Amino acid sequence: MAHIPLQDGLPGIVGLFAFSPETATALRELAEVLLRGSNSLTSGEREMLASYVSFRNRCDFCQLSHGAAAAAHFGGDARIVDGVIRDVGTADVSDKMKALFTIASKVQEGGKLVTSEDVAVARQHGATDKEVHDTVLIAAAFCMYNRYVDGLGTWQPRDPNMYREMGERMAGQGYVRAQ
Amino acid sequence: MAHIPLQDGLPGIVGLFAFSPETATALRELAEVLLRGSNSLTSGEREMLASYVSFRNRCDFCQLSHGAAAAAHFGGDARIVDGVIRDVGTADVSDKMKALFTIASKVQEGGKLVTSEDVAVARQHGATDKEVHDTVLIAAAFCMYNRYVDGLGTWQPRDPNMYREMGERMAGQGYVRAQ
Repeated sequence: MAHIPLQDGLPGIVGLFAFSPETATALRELAEVLLRGSNSLTSGEREMLASYVSFRNRCDFCQLSHGAAAAAHFGGDARIVDGVIRDVGTADVSDKMKALFTIASKVQEGGKLVTSEDVAVARQHGATDKEVHDTVLIAAAFCMYNRYVDGLGTWQPRDPNMYREMGERMAGQGYVRAQ
Repeated sequence: MAHIPLQDGLPGIVGLFAFSPETATALRELAEVLLRGSNSLTSGEREMLASYVSFRNRCDFCQLSHGAAAAAHFGGDARIVDGVIRDVGTADVSDKMKALFTIASKVQEGGKLVTSEDVAVARQHGATDKEVHDTVLIAAAFCMYNRYVDGLGTWQPRDPNMYREMGERMAGQGYVRAQ
Protein backbone atom coordinates (compact mmCIF):
# COMPACT_ATOMS: atom_id res chain seq x y z
CA MET A 1 0.00 0.00 0.00
CA ALA A 2 1.23 3.46 -0.87
CA HIS A 3 2.63 5.63 1.94
CA ILE A 4 0.33 8.53 0.99
CA PRO A 5 -3.27 8.40 -0.27
CA LEU A 6 -3.19 7.93 -4.06
CA GLN A 7 -6.06 7.47 -6.48
CA ASP A 8 -7.01 3.80 -7.00
CA GLY A 9 -6.01 2.19 -10.27
CA LEU A 10 -3.21 4.59 -11.21
CA PRO A 11 0.05 2.62 -11.33
CA GLY A 12 3.54 3.78 -10.34
CA ILE A 13 4.42 7.35 -11.12
CA VAL A 14 1.00 8.00 -12.71
CA GLY A 15 -0.62 8.11 -9.25
CA LEU A 16 2.10 10.47 -8.03
CA PHE A 17 1.57 12.81 -11.00
CA ALA A 18 -2.13 13.00 -10.07
CA PHE A 19 -1.27 13.62 -6.38
CA SER A 20 1.22 16.39 -7.14
CA PRO A 21 0.52 18.14 -10.46
CA GLU A 22 2.84 21.02 -9.51
CA THR A 23 5.89 18.74 -9.60
CA ALA A 24 4.51 16.50 -12.39
CA THR A 25 4.97 19.21 -15.02
CA ALA A 26 8.77 19.41 -14.69
CA LEU A 27 9.11 15.63 -14.27
CA ARG A 28 7.10 14.98 -17.44
CA GLU A 29 9.02 17.61 -19.41
CA LEU A 30 12.34 16.13 -18.34
CA ALA A 31 11.28 12.64 -19.51
CA GLU A 32 10.04 14.06 -22.80
CA VAL A 33 13.26 15.90 -23.68
CA LEU A 34 15.53 13.09 -22.42
CA LEU A 35 13.73 10.20 -24.08
CA ARG A 36 12.04 11.76 -27.10
CA GLY A 37 13.87 15.03 -27.81
CA SER A 38 16.11 15.44 -30.85
CA ASN A 39 19.15 13.20 -30.40
CA SER A 40 21.57 10.97 -32.32
CA LEU A 41 20.63 8.17 -29.89
CA THR A 42 17.26 6.77 -30.97
CA SER A 43 14.34 6.87 -28.56
CA GLY A 44 14.51 3.07 -28.43
CA GLU A 45 18.15 3.22 -27.32
CA ARG A 46 17.35 5.85 -24.68
CA GLU A 47 14.34 3.90 -23.38
CA MET A 48 16.65 0.87 -23.03
CA LEU A 49 19.05 2.93 -20.90
CA ALA A 50 16.07 3.97 -18.73
CA SER A 51 14.84 0.39 -18.40
CA TYR A 52 18.33 -0.92 -17.61
CA VAL A 53 19.01 1.61 -14.85
CA SER A 54 15.56 0.91 -13.38
CA PHE A 55 16.33 -2.82 -13.45
CA ARG A 56 19.55 -2.15 -11.55
CA ASN A 57 17.57 -0.09 -9.03
CA ARG A 58 15.01 -2.92 -8.81
CA CYS A 59 12.14 -0.61 -9.74
CA ASP A 60 9.85 -3.04 -11.59
CA PHE A 61 7.35 -0.41 -12.69
CA CYS A 62 9.96 1.76 -14.44
CA GLN A 63 11.93 -1.19 -15.82
CA LEU A 64 8.87 -2.83 -17.37
CA SER A 65 7.14 0.32 -18.65
CA HIS A 66 10.28 1.81 -20.24
CA GLY A 67 11.29 -1.63 -21.51
CA ALA A 68 7.87 -1.84 -23.17
CA ALA A 69 8.37 1.65 -24.63
CA ALA A 70 11.73 0.52 -26.07
CA ALA A 71 10.07 -2.56 -27.59
CA ALA A 72 7.34 -0.35 -29.07
CA HIS A 73 10.04 1.79 -30.72
CA PHE A 74 11.50 -1.46 -32.14
CA GLY A 75 8.20 -2.34 -33.82
CA GLY A 76 6.93 -4.39 -30.89
CA ASP A 77 10.04 -6.55 -30.65
CA ALA A 78 11.13 -6.98 -27.01
CA ARG A 79 14.09 -9.25 -27.75
CA ILE A 80 16.80 -6.57 -27.77
CA VAL A 81 15.73 -4.99 -24.47
CA ASP A 82 15.26 -8.45 -22.90
CA GLY A 83 18.83 -9.22 -23.99
CA VAL A 84 20.14 -6.04 -22.37
CA ILE A 85 18.44 -6.90 -19.08
CA ARG A 86 19.83 -10.44 -19.24
CA ASP A 87 23.42 -9.44 -20.08
CA VAL A 88 24.61 -6.26 -21.78
CA GLY A 89 27.83 -8.01 -22.85
CA THR A 90 26.01 -10.45 -25.13
CA ALA A 91 23.05 -8.21 -26.07
CA ASP A 92 22.33 -7.33 -29.70
CA VAL A 93 23.43 -3.70 -29.39
CA SER A 94 26.37 -1.74 -30.82
CA ASP A 95 29.73 -1.44 -29.09
CA LYS A 96 28.93 2.25 -28.58
CA MET A 97 25.73 1.34 -26.73
CA LYS A 98 27.63 -1.23 -24.63
CA ALA A 99 30.07 1.48 -23.60
CA LEU A 100 27.16 3.81 -22.76
CA PHE A 101 25.48 1.05 -20.71
CA THR A 102 28.74 0.77 -18.75
CA ILE A 103 28.66 4.51 -18.02
CA ALA A 104 24.97 4.28 -17.02
CA SER A 105 25.72 1.40 -14.65
CA LYS A 106 28.46 3.46 -12.97
CA VAL A 107 26.12 6.45 -12.59
CA GLN A 108 23.49 4.18 -11.05
CA GLU A 109 25.96 3.21 -8.33
CA GLY A 110 27.36 6.72 -7.87
CA GLY A 111 28.40 9.58 -10.13
CA LYS A 112 32.02 9.59 -8.95
CA LEU A 113 32.55 6.06 -10.30
CA VAL A 114 32.53 7.22 -13.94
CA THR A 115 36.14 7.44 -15.15
CA SER A 116 37.86 9.20 -18.04
CA GLU A 117 38.60 5.71 -19.36
CA ASP A 118 34.89 4.81 -19.43
CA VAL A 119 34.23 7.94 -21.47
CA ALA A 120 37.26 7.34 -23.72
CA VAL A 121 35.98 3.85 -24.60
CA ALA A 122 32.58 5.30 -25.52
CA ARG A 123 34.28 7.92 -27.71
CA GLN A 124 36.42 5.27 -29.43
CA HIS A 125 33.15 3.63 -30.48
CA GLY A 126 31.82 6.91 -31.81
CA ALA A 127 29.90 8.41 -28.88
CA THR A 128 29.54 12.20 -29.04
CA ASP A 129 29.70 14.67 -26.15
CA LYS A 130 25.91 14.96 -26.23
CA GLU A 131 25.49 11.18 -26.16
CA VAL A 132 27.79 10.93 -23.12
CA HIS A 133 25.96 13.83 -21.44
CA ASP A 134 22.51 12.41 -22.14
CA THR A 135 23.49 8.91 -21.01
CA VAL A 136 24.69 10.29 -17.65
CA LEU A 137 21.57 12.43 -17.24
CA ILE A 138 19.16 9.62 -18.25
CA ALA A 139 20.84 7.29 -15.74
CA ALA A 140 20.78 9.99 -13.05
CA ALA A 141 17.15 10.88 -13.78
CA PHE A 142 16.03 7.27 -13.43
CA CYS A 143 17.81 7.10 -10.08
CA MET A 144 15.28 9.84 -9.19
CA TYR A 145 12.17 8.41 -10.85
CA ASN A 146 12.87 4.94 -9.38
CA ARG A 147 13.29 6.32 -5.85
CA TYR A 148 10.17 8.46 -6.21
CA VAL A 149 8.05 5.48 -7.33
CA ASP A 150 9.45 3.08 -4.71
CA GLY A 151 9.98 5.56 -1.86
CA LEU A 152 6.25 6.29 -1.75
CA GLY A 153 5.26 2.64 -2.07
CA THR A 154 3.19 3.01 -5.25
CA TRP A 155 1.15 0.23 -6.86
CA GLN A 156 3.20 -1.67 -9.45
CA PRO A 157 1.02 -3.96 -11.59
CA ARG A 158 2.35 -7.34 -12.76
CA ASP A 159 0.15 -7.77 -15.86
CA PRO A 160 2.42 -7.78 -18.96
CA ASN A 161 -0.45 -6.54 -21.17
CA MET A 162 -0.78 -3.43 -19.02
CA TYR A 163 2.91 -2.64 -19.57
CA ARG A 164 2.68 -3.31 -23.28
CA GLU A 165 -0.19 -0.85 -23.62
CA MET A 166 1.59 1.67 -21.43
CA GLY A 167 4.80 1.33 -23.47
CA GLU A 168 2.90 1.88 -26.72
CA ARG A 169 1.35 5.07 -25.32
CA MET A 170 4.72 6.30 -24.00
CA ALA A 171 6.41 5.62 -27.36
CA GLY A 172 3.56 7.04 -29.42
CA GLN A 173 2.29 10.00 -27.43
CA GLY A 174 5.20 10.82 -25.14
CA TYR A 175 5.31 12.09 -21.61
CA VAL A 176 3.92 15.59 -21.63
CA ARG A 177 0.25 14.73 -22.06
CA ALA A 178 -1.55 12.68 -19.39
CA GLN A 179 -0.89 8.93 -19.71
CA MET B 1 38.64 17.69 -15.51
CA ALA B 2 35.12 17.35 -16.82
CA HIS B 3 34.31 14.38 -19.06
CA ILE B 4 32.79 16.67 -21.72
CA PRO B 5 33.92 20.17 -22.79
CA LEU B 6 32.31 22.70 -20.43
CA GLN B 7 32.75 26.46 -20.32
CA ASP B 8 35.59 27.55 -17.99
CA GLY B 9 34.65 29.08 -14.67
CA LEU B 10 31.13 27.67 -14.41
CA PRO B 11 31.00 25.40 -11.35
CA GLY B 12 29.05 22.16 -10.90
CA ILE B 13 25.63 22.02 -12.50
CA VAL B 14 25.94 25.58 -13.84
CA GLY B 15 28.36 24.40 -16.54
CA LEU B 16 26.00 21.55 -17.43
CA PHE B 17 23.05 23.94 -17.73
CA ALA B 18 25.08 25.98 -20.22
CA PHE B 19 26.10 22.83 -22.15
CA SER B 20 22.54 21.51 -22.39
CA PRO B 21 19.92 24.28 -22.20
CA GLU B 22 17.23 21.91 -23.52
CA THR B 23 17.42 19.77 -20.35
CA ALA B 24 18.28 22.71 -18.06
CA THR B 25 14.78 24.15 -18.30
CA ALA B 26 13.04 21.16 -16.70
CA LEU B 27 15.85 20.66 -14.15
CA ARG B 28 15.64 24.31 -13.06
CA GLU B 29 11.85 24.24 -12.86
CA LEU B 30 11.93 21.10 -10.73
CA ALA B 31 14.37 22.71 -8.27
CA GLU B 32 12.24 25.86 -8.14
CA VAL B 33 8.97 24.10 -7.30
CA LEU B 34 10.60 21.61 -4.90
CA LEU B 35 12.69 24.09 -2.95
CA ARG B 36 10.83 27.38 -3.29
CA GLY B 37 7.22 26.50 -4.24
CA SER B 38 4.36 26.95 -1.79
CA ASN B 39 4.81 24.45 1.04
CA SER B 40 4.34 24.02 4.79
CA LEU B 41 8.03 23.06 4.96
CA THR B 42 10.07 26.27 4.79
CA SER B 43 12.57 26.74 1.98
CA GLY B 44 15.32 26.58 4.61
CA GLU B 45 14.09 23.16 5.75
CA ARG B 46 13.87 21.91 2.17
CA GLU B 47 17.35 23.23 1.31
CA MET B 48 18.66 21.34 4.37
CA LEU B 49 17.12 18.11 3.04
CA ALA B 50 18.84 18.78 -0.31
CA SER B 51 22.19 19.48 1.36
CA TYR B 52 21.91 16.42 3.60
CA VAL B 53 21.15 14.01 0.75
CA SER B 54 24.01 15.53 -1.28
CA PHE B 55 26.33 15.05 1.70
CA ARG B 56 25.30 11.39 1.88
CA ASN B 57 26.00 11.09 -1.87
CA ARG B 58 29.36 12.84 -1.32
CA CYS B 59 28.55 15.53 -3.87
CA ASP B 60 30.43 18.50 -2.40
CA PHE B 61 29.12 21.04 -4.87
CA CYS B 62 25.44 20.31 -4.13
CA GLN B 63 26.00 19.86 -0.40
CA LEU B 64 27.81 23.17 0.00
CA SER B 65 25.68 25.26 -2.36
CA HIS B 66 22.34 24.06 -0.95
CA GLY B 67 23.74 24.24 2.58
CA ALA B 68 24.64 27.87 1.85
CA ALA B 69 21.13 28.46 0.48
CA ALA B 70 19.66 27.02 3.71
CA ALA B 71 21.91 29.30 5.77
CA ALA B 72 20.82 32.28 3.66
CA HIS B 73 17.16 31.42 4.43
CA PHE B 74 18.14 31.37 8.13
CA GLY B 75 19.47 34.94 7.96
CA GLY B 76 23.04 33.86 7.17
CA ASP B 77 23.28 31.47 10.10
CA ALA B 78 24.92 28.18 9.02
CA ARG B 79 24.83 26.56 12.48
CA ILE B 80 21.61 24.57 12.00
CA VAL B 81 22.62 23.07 8.66
CA ASP B 82 26.14 22.38 9.96
CA GLY B 83 24.51 20.53 12.88
CA VAL B 84 22.41 18.42 10.51
CA ILE B 85 25.48 17.41 8.51
CA ARG B 86 27.33 16.57 11.73
CA ASP B 87 24.51 14.52 13.31
CA VAL B 88 20.78 14.77 12.60
CA GLY B 89 20.04 13.19 16.00
CA THR B 90 21.49 16.11 17.95
CA ALA B 91 20.76 18.87 15.41
CA ASP B 92 18.63 21.89 16.35
CA VAL B 93 15.63 20.84 14.25
CA SER B 94 12.11 19.65 15.15
CA ASP B 95 11.21 16.00 15.73
CA LYS B 96 9.15 16.20 12.54
CA MET B 97 12.24 17.25 10.57
CA LYS B 98 14.30 14.49 12.19
CA ALA B 99 11.69 11.95 11.01
CA LEU B 100 11.78 13.48 7.51
CA PHE B 101 15.59 13.33 7.47
CA THR B 102 15.28 9.61 8.29
CA ILE B 103 12.97 9.13 5.31
CA ALA B 104 15.35 11.14 3.09
CA SER B 105 18.30 8.99 4.18
CA LYS B 106 16.38 5.82 3.28
CA VAL B 107 15.47 7.23 -0.16
CA GLN B 108 19.12 8.12 -0.73
CA GLU B 109 20.06 4.46 -0.26
CA GLY B 110 17.09 3.09 -2.19
CA GLY B 111 13.37 3.85 -2.44
CA LYS B 112 12.28 0.41 -1.25
CA LEU B 113 13.93 0.99 2.15
CA VAL B 114 11.26 3.49 3.25
CA THR B 115 8.82 1.68 5.56
CA SER B 116 5.27 2.39 6.74
CA GLU B 117 6.79 2.80 10.21
CA ASP B 118 9.15 5.56 8.99
CA VAL B 119 6.15 7.40 7.57
CA ALA B 120 4.04 6.76 10.70
CA VAL B 121 6.74 8.33 12.90
CA ALA B 122 6.79 11.41 10.67
CA ARG B 123 2.99 11.64 10.87
CA GLN B 124 3.06 11.30 14.69
CA HIS B 125 5.24 14.39 14.71
CA GLY B 126 2.80 16.26 12.49
CA ALA B 127 4.07 15.63 8.95
CA THR B 128 1.40 15.96 6.26
CA ASP B 129 0.98 13.84 3.13
CA LYS B 130 2.49 16.64 1.06
CA GLU B 131 5.46 16.94 3.40
CA VAL B 132 6.13 13.19 3.14
CA HIS B 133 5.70 13.34 -0.66
CA ASP B 134 7.99 16.33 -1.06
CA THR B 135 10.65 14.88 1.25
CA VAL B 136 10.78 11.70 -0.86
CA LEU B 137 10.90 13.66 -4.11
CA ILE B 138 13.54 16.14 -2.88
CA ALA B 139 15.72 13.23 -1.75
CA ALA B 140 15.14 11.39 -5.03
CA ALA B 141 15.80 14.53 -7.09
CA PHE B 142 19.13 15.13 -5.37
CA CYS B 143 20.13 11.54 -6.12
CA MET B 144 19.74 12.74 -9.72
CA TYR B 145 21.39 16.17 -9.45
CA ASN B 146 24.33 14.69 -7.50
CA ARG B 147 24.93 11.95 -10.07
CA TYR B 148 24.63 14.45 -12.93
CA VAL B 149 27.22 16.79 -11.37
CA ASP B 150 29.63 14.00 -10.39
CA GLY B 151 29.03 11.64 -13.32
CA LEU B 152 30.29 14.27 -15.76
CA GLY B 153 33.24 15.25 -13.58
CA THR B 154 32.32 18.94 -13.22
CA TRP B 155 34.48 21.56 -11.51
CA GLN B 156 33.61 21.86 -7.82
CA PRO B 157 35.21 24.94 -6.22
CA ARG B 158 36.46 24.84 -2.62
CA ASP B 159 36.24 28.56 -1.81
CA PRO B 160 33.61 29.02 0.96
CA ASN B 161 32.92 32.60 -0.18
CA MET B 162 31.90 31.33 -3.59
CA TYR B 163 29.34 29.01 -2.00
CA ARG B 164 28.06 31.75 0.31
CA GLU B 165 27.42 34.04 -2.64
CA MET B 166 25.85 31.20 -4.63
CA GLY B 167 23.60 30.27 -1.71
CA GLU B 168 22.43 33.88 -1.34
CA ARG B 169 21.54 34.01 -5.03
CA MET B 170 19.75 30.64 -4.88
CA ALA B 171 17.77 31.71 -1.81
CA GLY B 172 17.02 35.19 -3.13
CA GLN B 173 16.47 34.70 -6.84
CA GLY B 174 15.68 31.02 -7.13
CA TYR B 175 16.46 28.50 -9.80
CA VAL B 176 14.57 29.48 -12.89
CA ARG B 177 16.67 32.45 -13.95
CA ALA B 178 20.35 31.97 -14.85
CA GLN B 179 22.62 31.76 -11.76
